[in-house]
Amino acid sequence: MKHIKLEHGSGGALSRQLTEEIIYPILKNNIYTELSDAAVIEVNGKIAFTTDTYVVDPVFFPGGDIGKLAVCGTCNDLSVSGSKPQYLSLGLVIEEGFPIEQLIRILNSIRSTADSAGVNIITGDTKVVPGGKGGNIYINTSGIGVKEYSETISASRISVNDAVIISGPIGSHGIAIMASRESINLGSKITSDVALLYPLCRSLFGLGSRLRFLRDTTRGGLAAILNEICSGNSFGLNIRESAIPVNEDVQAVSDILGLNPIEIANEGVLTLVTDPGSAQEALDILHRHETGREAAVIGNVTEVFPGRVILETLVGGKRILDYPRGLLLPRIC
Amino acid sequence: MKHIKLEHGSGGALSRQLTEEIIYPILKNNIYTELSDAAVIEVNGKIAFTTDTYVVDPVFFPGGDIGKLAVCGTCNDLSVSGSKPQYLSLGLVIEEGFPIEQLIRILNSIRSTADSAGVNIITGDTKVVPGGKGGNIYINTSGIGVKEYSETISASRISVNDAVIISGPIGSHGIAIMASRESINLGSKITSDVALLYPLCRSLFGLGSRLRFLRDTTRGGLAAILNEICSGNSFGLNIRESAIPVNEDVQAVSDILGLNPIEIANEGVLTLVTDPGSAQEALDILHRHETGREAAVIGNVTEVFPGRVILETLVGGKRILDYPRGLLLPRIC
Repeated sequence: MKHIKLEHGSGGALSRQLTEEIIYPILKNNIYTELSDAAVIEVNGKIAFTTDTYVVDPVFFPGGDIGKLAVCGTCNDLSVSGSKPQYLSLGLVIEEGFPIEQLIRILNSIRSTADSAGVNIITGDTKVVPGGKGGNIYINTSGIGVKEYSETISASRISVNDAVIISGPIGSHGIAIMASRESINLGSKITSDVALLYPLCRSLFGLGSRLRFLRDTTRGGLAAILNEICSGNSFGLNIRESAIPVNEDVQAVSDILGLNPIEIANEGVLTLVTDPGSAQEALDILHRHETGREAAVIGNVTEVFPGRVILETLVGGKRILDYPRGLLLPRIC
Repeated sequence: MKHIKLEHGSGGALSRQLTEEIIYPILKNNIYTELSDAAVIEVNGKIAFTTDTYVVDPVFFPGGDIGKLAVCGTCNDLSVSGSKPQYLSLGLVIEEGFPIEQLIRILNSIRSTADSAGVNIITGDTKVVPGGKGGNIYINTSGIGVKEYSETISASRISVNDAVIISGPIGSHGIAIMASRESINLGSKITSDVALLYPLCRSLFGLGSRLRFLRDTTRGGLAAILNEICSGNSFGLNIRESAIPVNEDVQAVSDILGLNPIEIANEGVLTLVTDPGSAQEALDILHRHETGREAAVIGNVTEVFPGRVILETLVGGKRILDYPRGLLLPRIC
């Protein structure tokens, strides 16, 4: 058995063989102890629930793969909602002909990332679609986390003069994907930033209500998140482009591809807003983590231009930074 | 805006427009009140968690559509695990070019089925993949249910002489899909049985420990479920083919297509095992429901041939009924 066949998705003998001999042995844990329709767990109190489907192309990229991405991405969504990630489901849609060796590599990556995150995969589903219909493999992970941060994370808690902070350099995930898709050989210079953000988030929860807002800076990049923060609200954001950390190599490749890192997806970067007096404390917290060591204050909340993001550009001008438009980076995550 | 564009999945302005103007207004409820990364809910006690991705082709079929299927299927997985379905996530993977009018029809179907089930969609994600890569639309629903039935549903609770019961006629979902795919015009004669099974399950929970096992009879059909029940166990199953309800039209089309209804997927049929003395009570319970009015005892648990399903065929012989093999019904659910 070297490749996935349509029959692996039929519910018959081959489906059972794939689940019992390949998927389950890699993923099993104390809770996922039998192949039933649903996992039963005990939970008390507030939980967070989230879902994401990952369709990234290519499935293996510098710095990670679709499996690592599927675990990190969903755990990060739970983390920025103020929760500790605990349980994941795994829905695979595999294209007929997909090499089983690659499936095993992806499953091992899922397992090891889940172990790092301290989460258990507790229920799953596998579908097979005819060749040409599935783009190799799509992975849905839905997740349950236990609420740890007592405040509600919502832009409605943001006030004028609050500080806008980014936890690390932007653009590396999107550029790593684009470069491998365009066969631009970067050596080991640019790798995806895909990472678990719970350790950073957990440290930040200690700020209590002085932490106003927290989000992972994924699709649409920093530009989309900044607009989401102020869109429809009575405040705007003033952002200094020169303060935004961007790796030199990411900037160089972005220039070649005609892209702006501010619009590019990240998978290991937090955008947060704190009260002005707590910005330095937030930076100190972030700097103690490897993934946060280049954290920087990039701007502040203003009364000027409510609902708008004003970017002070590198050349000293000012422009409105809008949601990315017309940018086609399909299957970036 | 008539068709889905790649940019609808970019995380930028068009993504936001799709979510805010089309998806969210159809699905919103008391919990899904803002577009955040995760929904926060309060839960106390045992919950069930499950996931399924639906890749059915065609997306609209006699008796339902992929949206209704995605809600029913995941709610049914929760129900047969002894739980009341409560919360769903919705992960859409849409192919570039997919008509927005069809997306709206599917979302309305999701909403009305969720309302019938008394569940809320509380978190979601939308990805767009290039034309030819997504098979129109794939839908993942993951679900959380609150455990109501105090016993563990597991084949390990089954004993010799227990009764095997099916809640209704088999094969109509798979045949409805195949017929519409092969353009066999059946008039309104065969429609998918896709239905919410929670009302039936809830009634059966009252049997307490006399209900041994409960499963929805989906991919791989009755043949797969019966094998799952006894595979690797110290008992076998004796099943009478003549006792299995099959609609005349489903049988006729199955014969034309060279298929056996016993191997065909259902989306509204329960397979259950009860203690022998409770079989009639279980039938009485099922017969009170529209979806269970043709429920029948189809066989019993035996010591003969442990791990095997023995089928007493219509012509009076006996044969081993194995997991379906080599049967290619891709994208049936």
